[in-house]
Order: sequence, then structure tokens, then C-alpha cells
Amino acid sequence: MVAGCRIDELADAVGRASAGRLPFVLYGEASRRVSGVAPLQTAGEEQLSFLANPRYRAAVAASRAGAIVLTAADRQLVFGEAAASATLVECANPYAWFAFAAQLLAAGEPLQPGVAAGAHVDAGASIDASARVDAGAVVEAGADVGPRCWIGAGAHVGAGARIGADTRLHPGARVLAGCLVGARGIVHSGAVIGSDGFGFAPLEGRWIKIPQTGRVVIGDDVEIGANTTIDRGAMGDTVIEDGVKLDNLIQVGHNCRIGAHSVLAGCVGIAGSADIGRGCQIGGAAMIAGHLSIADGTLIGPGTLVSRTIASAGHYTGFFPLMANRDWERNAAALRHLQQLRGRVRALEERLKRGGAEED
Amino acid sequence: MVAGCRIDELADAVGRASAGRLPFVLYGEASRRVSGVAPLQTAGEEQLSFLANPRYRAAVAASRAGAIVLTAADRQLVFGEAAASATLVECANPYAWFAFAAQLLAAGEPLQPGVAAGAHVDAGASIDASARVDAGAVVEAGADVGPRCWIGAGAHVGAGARIGADTRLHPGARVLAGCLVGARGIVHSGAVIGSDGFGFAPLEGRWIKIPQTGRVVIGDDVEIGANTTIDRGAMGDTVIEDGVKLDNLIQVGHNCRIGAHSVLAGCVGIAGSADIGRGCQIGGAAMIAGHLSIADGTLIGPGTLVSRTIASAGHYTGFFPLMANRDWERNAAALRHLQQLRGRVRALEERLKRGGAEED
Amino acid sequence: MVAGCRIDELADAVGRASAGRLPFVLYGEASRRVSGVAPLQTAGEEQLSFLANPRYRAAVAASRAGAIVLTAADRQLVFGEAAASATLVECANPYAWFAFAAQLLAAGEPLQPGVAAGAHVDAGASIDASARVDAGAVVEAGADVGPRCWIGAGAHVGAGARIGADTRLHPGARVLAGCLVGARGIVHSGAVIGSDGFGFAPLEGRWIKIPQTGRVVIGDDVEIGANTTIDRGAMGDTVIEDGVKLDNLIQVGHNCRIGAHSVLAGCVGIAGSADIGRGCQIGGAAMIAGHLSIADGTLIGPGTLVSRTIASAGHYTGFFPLMANRDWERNAAALRHLQQLRGRVRALEERLKRGGAEED
Repeated sequence: MVAGCRIDELADAVGRASAGRLPFVLYGEASRRVSGVAPLQTAGEEQLSFLANPRYRAAVAASRAGAIVLTAADRQLVFGEAAASATLVECANPYAWFAFAAQLLAAGEPLQPGVAAGAHVDAGASIDASARVDAGAVVEAGADVGPRCWIGAGAHVGAGARIGADTRLHPGARVLAGCLVGARGIVHSGAVIGSDGFGFAPLEGRWIKIPQTGRVVIGDDVEIGANTTIDRGAMGDTVIEDGVKLDNLIQVGHNCRIGAHSVLAGCVGIAGSADIGRGCQIGGAAMIAGHLSIADGTLIGPGTLVSRTIASAGHYTGFFPLMANRDWERNAAALRHLQQLRGRVRALEERLKRGGAEED
Repeated sequence: MVAGCRIDELADAVGRASAGRLPFVLYGEASRRVSGVAPLQTAGEEQLSFLANPRYRAAVAASRAGAIVLTAADRQLVFGEAAASATLVECANPYAWFAFAAQLLAAGEPLQPGVAAGAHVDAGASIDASARVDAGAVVEAGADVGPRCWIGAGAHVGAGARIGADTRLHPGARVLAGCLVGARGIVHSGAVIGSDGFGFAPLEGRWIKIPQTGRVVIGDDVEIGANTTIDRGAMGDTVIEDGVKLDNLIQVGHNCRIGAHSVLAGCVGIAGSADIGRGCQIGGAAMIAGHLSIADGTLIGPGTLVSRTIASAGHYTGFFPLMANRDWERNAAALRHLQQLRGRVRALEERLKRGGAEED
Repeated sequence: MVAGCRIDELADAVGRASAGRLPFVLYGEASRRVSGVAPLQTAGEEQLSFLANPRYRAAVAASRAGAIVLTAADRQLVFGEAAASATLVECANPYAWFAFAAQLLAAGEPLQPGVAAGAHVDAGASIDASARVDAGAVVEAGADVGPRCWIGAGAHVGAGARIGADTRLHPGARVLAGCLVGARGIVHSGAVIGSDGFGFAPLEGRWIKIPQTGRVVIGDDVEIGANTTIDRGAMGDTVIEDGVKLDNLIQVGHNCRIGAHSVLAGCVGIAGSADIGRGCQIGGAAMIAGHLSIADGTLIGPGTLVSRTIASAGHYTGFFPLMANRDWERNAAALRHLQQLRGRVRALEERLKRGGAEED
């Protein structure tokens, strides 16, 4: 965290970082200094906070934050014409403005370039002079590590793999042989990029391995969560497009495509050759079967199994609702005979149609 | 495993380890030696076994174990006034007595302190003289490793992280920068403590990262399973209280709290800012949505999605029951129209109320 | 990938590798050379492709592949008596033939034996002279690494563990102390073999650890996916029999047995002491409760929770079907009262039996 900066200077920097997509107006003391971020409830006078959810509007008035980002409507509702003790940043998208500001405040010192004494870098690997490789990391022959990359302690870059500019491999992240990661990527600890896909041919009750000769190809601005696994393609490639965000403990099968700017929450599983559109949002622990496609912009609820192609965008869900265990036991028992229950209702309807009980 | 010890000496040690909370009575030869533990069915005369589940009562009489822990009631039912060939340890909680005894028998030789030649310890890290750091492990600047800790091969202690006394990081366990682990903890291989939480602000179809500046703070006597991931807080901390036990492949989102002495089985997922009470038991593969709370002492069944706050303790369940696939296909099809079926039943009820079939 | 080989020579090698279980007939130019594999749609004249799914029959005629494996029936249907431009390999099981051929074509150069400078091998470990240990890998005292094994970068072989001939530990795979892996195994990156099982005795609201003193014993020809975890037995062993294939992010609890040649897709969880038969197929994200058994040859659908013993083989399923979220909300609400709905239907039936609406 930097020692702190003036709010007007921070705002200028947010303007540059967001390419002017987040117009804002400052109210109050523009020369005040902030050095970090905090929630409205706990922020002090050197901290920046934000209001995005109207539910917390009351906390704005009570907050001791030095600066608060909020919408014009919320500013009006909370303060009207009165002056706020905090410096206010009025913006139509306060959460995004806050995100850029928080990144700037958290940026800290620039990466110290160099290869640590305890790193294992093959003579045939190429490491940009501005990159950093920490102790215990391994970079194999033919690998290429780009400008300003960070290869954390114990991380792995396999033979012929390529890591784009400004990409960060956290401690123990692994990008295996031949796989490509684009620019400004983040691969968290324990993630495995390029494990073998799960492909076998049956022969007389045994399973003959299909060698997995494809790669994983990852675009720019992608984040891969801790202990997430992405299998290489069987013959072609597994493709993760630009801007995709994967949470922790996700499994992506071989030859999947995940379209640009889709976000997948933790514990999701995706079987082989699934084709997920752009801008999708997949809830935690959802499971997606193989060889299907999901339309751009689709929302999948948590814990939902997608067993067929979704051709039109929408919000889809499918999980068993939570119940007291005793109710669950009864309802689950009834569910085992739901089809028969439907038949019994149909029989009642037909009987009444034919004239009620007389024909019994 | 020690060469073996007398049962009466072992019993004294259990008494000390359990602070006298497990009163017991010995029957039979107290000077017999045991050197390990085994199930009733396979134990030999140098092994200790136990009976906790009355279903296995018959196995007690047939067992060749040198010593058996069991309740007074079971001792009476199995042996009455007859002498057992095994030495018997009568205790109201035989499984807990056995647990302490098994720990003592498994304790083996004390840890050899020291930093292995192949370990990577930063000059600015503090390693207690009684701790051990194995080959390939990395301890970064400002980290603090306490007395009698074990940092296994390839494990990672990030900058400024703190590992409490007697805590064990198994090979490849990772405690990232700034995170705290209490005393007597166990972190299993591949676990990641302190990965970034999953937080992004949407802006014109893209996702702007919210820097995750909090920590993970773990209490005493906590066990974290293999390849489990715990995200650091976005602004505040993610908190795991004393005595919590997490199994393998669990995901804990940022800013969660898990209350003291709760146990979570494998493959559980917890979204951000969930607040789980003390003494909860969460079944395998249960999924807990974010921004909700679960009352102290709640039981959640396996495979259950908790999508709302649970305000009062109880036993909750919600998974689709197993069926023959053919039945599932029919029942699942009927489930897609359950709401209509309910409407049809209501229509039948109203028709009958109005006088049966005549009005059709 | 080798520079390429003649199809007739490749076919001879497949015959040897498959021990003659895959009889075949070549049609067309047997001396043509292939150097790799590709799907029908993208293969060029130096590549081998295959047709296993009749749906892609049209792609065979259009393919530019140098050689294609297919059944006699498909060859007849596509080409009749006409000559194909590709060399054809006619075989009753084209996918298995292709699998062996692809393995041969992908085999590449033989492993370079030796222990890398940056590897950490204990003086008390035994490494076969034909094995290879990469940088950052750790092999502890008493471990035994067999002929032609590959211990990848950062992989771990614990004290007393044994790795059978021709087994490959990918970068960061971990086989912990005392565990055994058979011959021709593949352990993918981040997998953990031999973490502690999840066993605790309750005592006054706390949990006393049961030391996990068993091993994991893995047979021959087993493949373990990336970041999969297999716990060691509490007292006996966890057993994975010959030919089992486990995908990524699977959890196997202590004292489980997985019968020979069973395949488990990604994200499956198995609680302790489950006994899974031979030749089973378990779909992705299925969850299997503890202390039950599953008959040989059983199929479990994806996302299914197996909560009771399955005594006879069959195809079992149990997941909530996907719905538009609006439909799900209504149907889930109705499901909460399904037992009552059943009661209402019964009441209607009884009323009609007694003579319809008159008695209302």
C-alpha cells in the first residue's frame, strides 16, 4: 500500500485506468489523503469506502470514512444539500470506480525483477529481464516468460509454455508443457493448467488411454482460482477466452471453450467438449455435462446440473430445495412415486369427466 | 510407533492428555504391552482396539486384541462375570479414550529440528530453533514459524505469515502472505490458505478486480484437509475459529466465518461472507450460498444446498433421492410440471366441493 | 512425436501392443507415413483419424486424413467398392485401435534417466538407474522409485513410499509416506495420495483426532487426476485396484476400496469406507456416502448422491432437472409440500370411492 495519495490525484488515476468510462464529480475536500480501503462501518479518515447496495444507505451518514464513492441519487438521499464530513465521489457505477481506486491503492511497490537463487530455470528457457522468478519455481526448456511476469515460489512453467506480459503465477500455480497464458493473467496457487483430459477407449472391460496431445490456450485478463484444474485438449485445444474469471476448485474438461468475460463460481465442474458462451454467469457447484453448448449471456443457478444444450439465454436453475430433514424424508419418499401420483390425478380427472364416482 | 508400552502406563498418559475427562477402569492384566491399534477383527495381542458401535458387540468376544476399550454396559453384556482374554478398559466414551491412546501410540519419535539444506528460508524470516523445515519448502520474509512446527517438503509460508506452536504443514501445504495459523494446527498437502477472494465489479460487460486485501485468520487446533482452499478477505478477514475441522477439497469464500468446533466433510463449498455457527456439522458436498448465517449446532445433510439463513438449529437436508435411471426419467419429467399437478389437484378438490362431476 | 512411420509398421506395433485383441485389415496404400492424429475434420495427409460414432460418417468421405480407422460396416456404407483416398484400417473396435496407435505416435523420445541437480533425494532413498527425477522434486528416506519412472518437477515421494515401474508422477503430484503405487501408473499434478482420513471422536463438543495409520495401496495401470485426493486408511488401507481411472478433483475417503477397472469422472466425492465394485462407471460430481457398497458394473449418473448400498448392478440417477428459474421457483415450492399433495390425492380417491362429492 502506498503511503497515501490525494483524492483528486487518485481520481485522476482512476480516470486514466478506466479510460474515461467512469465519469465522476468530487464533493468536499479534494486534497484529503487516503491510503487504503475499508467497509463503511469500519473505515477511518484515511480510508476510501463505497455505497453500491441501497440497503447500506444508513451506514453512509454514520461512516467515518475519509472518502465515499456513491451514486448521485444516493448522495441526494443521504446528504441533500448538507455538506458531508467525507469527501464524496459521485459516480453512476460506484463499485467499478471503487475497484479501480482500490487497485491503485493496493498496488504497492513494483516487482523486483530477477531469478531467485533457489529457482530452477532451464538454460533453454527465456525469461524477460523485467520478470521475477521466486525460490523453488521451475521453468523448463523452451518456456517463455514475458515482461513483468511474476512466477511465485514453487510455481511451474512447463516445456514450451508461454506466459504473457504482466501475468502472475501465485506460489505453486502450474502451467504445464505447451500451454499458453495471455497478458495480465492471474493464476492462483495450486491451479493446474494442462493436465491430461479424461479419455479412454473401452476394450474387453479395460480402458485404453487416448493420449492427450492438445493444449490449453488462455486469453488476456483471465483469472484462474486456487486448485482449479483445466485439462489440455485431446487433439485440438481447450480454450479460455479473454476476461474469463474462474473461482477456486473448478474442473474444466478437455476441449471445452469458455467464452469471453464469463464468470464461474467455485466448485463448478465442466465435462469435456462443452461450449460455454460469452458473458455467462455460472453459480457455485453447478455441473455442466459434456458435448453441449450454452448460449451467450446465460445465467446458471448454483448447484444446478446442465444436462442439455441451452440455446437461448435466460436464468436456469435446478437444485433440490433445503428442508427440515423430517420433511425431506417424506417429500423425497413421495418424489420416488411422483409419476404414479400424476397417473392417479389423471385417473381422477377422467373419472370425474365421465361422471364422477358412479362408475367406480 | 513406540516399541510398545504397558496398558496401565498408557492409561495414565490418556488420563493426562484428556485432563481427566475420561474416567476409566481397567480389568485384567494391566501390565500387558501394546504397540499399536487395529480393528477388533484383525487386532493381535500387541494391539489395542475398541467397541463404540453395539453392532460389533459379537466381534469383541471373538477378538484377539490385547486390549479393548468399551462401555460398562457392553462389558457386562459381552463378558458378564467371566474374565476376558483381553485387558479391558471400561470408559463411558470408548471412542474418545481410544483416540487419545491411539495418538500416544502413533506419536513416534520427536521431530528433528532444523532447516534442511534444500529448504528456501528468507533471511528475514523467523524460524524457532525447535522447528523443522524440509527440503523444497519456502519461508518468505517476515514470516514467523513457531516452536516445534513442521514445515513439510515443498510447503510454503508467505511473507509475514505466522504459524503457531506445534503446527504441522504437510508437504505442499501453502499459507500465503499475511495469514495466521494458530497452535497445534494441521494443514494437509495442497491446501491453500489465503488465495484471493472472488470479487469483481461489472463494467460494460467486463469484470474489474476488487483487490483482496484481508487475511485468513485461523484459530488453535484447526485441521485443514488436502487441496482445500480458503480465500483471504476482501477488506476484513476470513475467520476459522478454534477447533474447526475441514476435510479435503473444501472451498471457503472470502470473509466467511466458521464457528468454533464445527466440522465440514469433503467437497463442501461456501460462498463469500457466509457466517457458520459454532458446533455445526456439514455433510459432504453440501453447498452454502453467500451472505447468510447458520445457527450454532446446525446439522446439514450431504449434497444439500443452503440458499437461505438458518436461524434455528436443526437437521436440514435437500438432495434428490437416488433412483433407477428409468424411474428418474419419469419422475424428473413429472417434477417439471409439479406446480401444474398441484393446480390440477386443487381443481379436483374444488369441483368435488361444488358437487362432484355434474358441473363438468 | 516421432518423425512419422509407415501405416503397416504402425499396424504391426498396434497388434503387438494390444496382444492381438484387435484384428484389422488394411485397405489402400500401406506404405504411407503418418506422424500424428487429428479429428476427421482437420486431419491432413500425415495424420491418422478414426470413426467410432456413426453420426460423423459423412465426415469420413470429406476427410483429408492420411489414414482412417473404422468398422467394416462403416467402410462399406461410406465407400462401398470405391477406393478411398485415405488408407483405411478396418477394425471391429476402431476407437481402441486408434488409442493404441495414438499412444505409439505420441510416445516421443525415451525418458532421459537421472536425478536433476535441483532435485532433493534423500541418501536413504532408492532410485532405479533408469528413472528420472526432475528439479524441485523431493524423494524422502526409504522411498523406492522403480525402473523407468518419471518423478516430475516439484513432485513428492514420501518416506517409505514405493513407485512401481514405468509410473509417471506429473509436476507437483504427491505420494505421501508409506503409500504404494503400482506399475504403469499416472499421477497428475497436484494429486495427493495419502493425506489423513477425516476421523475424530467427539468429546464435550470438541473433536479428538484419530491418528490415521493406514496406507493408500494403488494397483497397476491406475490413473489419478489433477488435484484429486486419496486419504490413507485409519487403521487398514485405502485400496485402489488395477486399471482404475480417476478424473480430476475427486475425493476418496479413508478405507475405501475402488474395484478394478472402474472409472470415476471429475468432482466425485466418496466418503469413508465405501466399497465400490469392479467395472463401475461413476458420473461427474456424483457423491457416495460412507460405509456402503456398490455392486460390480454399476452405472451412476452425474450429480447423483448415493446414500444407500446398491446391491444389484444397474443404471442409477438422482439429480434435480434443469428448469427456467421461474419454473424452478414454482416447482421447488410445490416440492416442499409434495407429501401433503399425495395426501390430498389419496383423500380425493377415497371420497370418490365412497361415492363422490355427496358426502362432503
